[in-house]
Amino acid sequence: MRVNYKKELEEAARNMILVHKPHTLIRMILRTIVRKVKIEHAGTLLYEKTRNSYIVTITRGQVGAKLPAGFIRLDPDAPIIRFFRHKEAYLSFFEDGALILSRVNYLLQKKELFHNDPETEKLLIAIKFQMKSFDAVVSVPCYFQNDLLGVLMLGEKVSKKCFKDEEIDFFIALANDVAMALRNAFLFEDLQLEIERNKRLFFETTMALAAAIDAKDHYTRGHTSRVTEYSLAIAKLIAADANGRSDDKFFEELHIASMLHDIGKIGVPESILNKNGPLTEEERKKINEHSLIGATILGPIKNLDGVILGIKHHHERHDGRGYPEGLGGEAIPYVARIISVADSFDAMTTDRPYRKAFTRDYAIVELERCSGSQFHPQIVKAAVTLYKRGELK
Amino acid sequence: MRVNYKKELEEAARNMILVHKPHTLIRMILRTIVRKVKIEHAGTLLYEKTRNSYIVTITRGQVGAKLPAGFIRLDPDAPIIRFFRHKEAYLSFFEDGALILSRVNYLLQKKELFHNDPETEKLLIAIKFQMKSFDAVVSVPCYFQNDLLGVLMLGEKVSKKCFKDEEIDFFIALANDVAMALRNAFLFEDLQLEIERNKRLFFETTMALAAAIDAKDHYTRGHTSRVTEYSLAIAKLIAADANGRSDDKFFEELHIASMLHDIGKIGVPESILNKNGPLTEEERKKINEHSLIGATILGPIKNLDGVILGIKHHHERHDGRGYPEGLGGEAIPYVARIISVADSFDAMTTDRPYRKAFTRDYAIVELERCSGSQFHPQIVKAAVTLYKRGELK
Repeated sequence: MRVNYKKELEEAARNMILVHKPHTLIRMILRTIVRKVKIEHAGTLLYEKTRNSYIVTITRGQVGAKLPAGFIRLDPDAPIIRFFRHKEAYLSFFEDGALILSRVNYLLQKKELFHNDPETEKLLIAIKFQMKSFDAVVSVPCYFQNDLLGVLMLGEKVSKKCFKDEEIDFFIALANDVAMALRNAFLFEDLQLEIERNKRLFFETTMALAAAIDAKDHYTRGHTSRVTEYSLAIAKLIAADANGRSDDKFFEELHIASMLHDIGKIGVPESILNKNGPLTEEERKKINEHSLIGATILGPIKNLDGVILGIKHHHERHDGRGYPEGLGGEAIPYVARIISVADSFDAMTTDRPYRKAFTRDYAIVELERCSGSQFHPQIVKAAVTLYKRGELK
Repeated sequence: MRVNYKKELEEAARNMILVHKPHTLIRMILRTIVRKVKIEHAGTLLYEKTRNSYIVTITRGQVGAKLPAGFIRLDPDAPIIRFFRHKEAYLSFFEDGALILSRVNYLLQKKELFHNDPETEKLLIAIKFQMKSFDAVVSVPCYFQNDLLGVLMLGEKVSKKCFKDEEIDFFIALANDVAMALRNAFLFEDLQLEIERNKRLFFETTMALAAAIDAKDHYTRGHTSRVTEYSLAIAKLIAADANGRSDDKFFEELHIASMLHDIGKIGVPESILNKNGPLTEEERKKINEHSLIGATILGPIKNLDGVILGIKHHHERHDGRGYPEGLGGEAIPYVARIISVADSFDAMTTDRPYRKAFTRDYAIVELERCSGSQFHPQIVKAAVTLYKRGELK
């Protein structure tokens, strides 16, 4: 055995605990094994909970790929998996915990062993063929507690020598570390999936509620989802032009604020929202309260400050003549500036109680005309660019 | 050095990667060190990101607590922390990475070392006093990359012998494993905090929107939050009576469904919701649509099936004479059965357009009278129990 390869492998396994993607982790450990132990190739069967099956991962060794390329799945009934999942039943054959091809062959020659146990003989024959199909001479299970999280499949040594007992023992110990790191990575993956699931639930529920409130106003059906789409597209373009890095927090705030920019309409009487004819001064005032009402509804929620400001100020104007506070220029929160342009574009291109929709071409000309007065020029410029690229659908 | 204590400690450190609470992890490793190395006590300074300070964690050794009890914080400016955070500046004094009290004392006697460097002398004096105040003879830093995640503070050996160089080296190596496990635990904590933050945001936003919709109906202000509170209290009592284990998924579904049970009212004209006087058959029908409308609004959302069923059926009756589907008995989803009782209790105990609120005593008698006809008896029983305990406020 080469000096220190154990130490190096142990250290590699230990460093793996900070790799939280099971596939990356497995590729790393396989590469290290192939290089340090000088074997032809190595692979794994890695458990995937969502499909209750084992996915085949391979690594190319020093003499090229020997294991089948691509992703193959083995279900829990596959011979090798069955063997390791029910190891108690076969301990008399493999007291050391690993499957060694030469030992399988040796046992199968002794027919008398299986007189009373043809099932085990059948299983061993199937295992033999499965190991050969992977070109593996040793299979080492990775258990966490009693769960089989994976199996290391090792090819021949480059030197063609057999693995020694102590080497097999070492791999079994190493597989323990791998199992621990895998378990850790799986737990991490679970948490990350939960985060994604929760986020999706949040966005979908908020959107559904916002759309329902939208629907109260007969003339703005679908408005919320279109404004959200436009806002995000505009922000993406500006971020790409600026530095290419995306500020997740900003995008999330913009996303939420866009979805909820009109929720204050819940506080405006239906009779005004759906009035068929010109609004009185009084009614107009009432409608204009919606941005402030929206901010008030969300007011008590922690960590939503950026969103609330975006909603509150989405009717401010660049020249300071908007509402509710008459903020102007750079004093208007960035989220609000974007929503303002997206909102106006959608308002112009949909039917209103008192007029038909304008064409998109006309709406873009209007945005440009009001750039610097109603709208922030940078946002208008981005909207126009998107439109010209056909991305403001 | 005792046989195998290194191996045992290394293995303990390795097993720690599945401990995802930094404090638990630290307590485990300290206990192991105290027991295996036979030292009087051990402690740590553990970094807390949220407060940018190091919290003192102690463990009782074989001769009782030597480190100060309770939680003490050290800010990044504390002598020991400063030393390890700027280790490059002091490498000439401590090339081996750990602080050893005897060496600090030895250096401080050599006045000439500090002629041009009175700052370092001052720092070492401060370190000496800080180590003494912790009754520590060795301090070992745990770095992840260049971040100081913690410091192990080791007391004297029970045998009163000095630590040997190789023992110090071993602790430095061990501290690396500890740092890795700590880093892993911190990352885990971050993800868990994010999950909690997202959940809170979801519940708070949903509640704010539901309450805003609530407010459209002048007579049901605060209804949503009270029904949510009652529903959860009832479910908790039933779960405690049954087996004591709480089914998180069920509680989450009940929580969301309770908050959103009336959102379908957004689809009912305000003129009907706020009508001052008895409703016509037609108007009553329109109002009764709200449970179905609510289910429809949320319909497209993935993973919300349980919630949607709870909303859809919260006006079914145990005897099958409710709406929208006339389901009865056990066919009514459990979430809906609970909301039904909570909803009715709140409706009875608040003012309505056509009557004043009933007393809570009266409402409870009514629930009991309708147990088995309108309501599921098990839910009524739980509500009555809560009321008698004064927990249905």
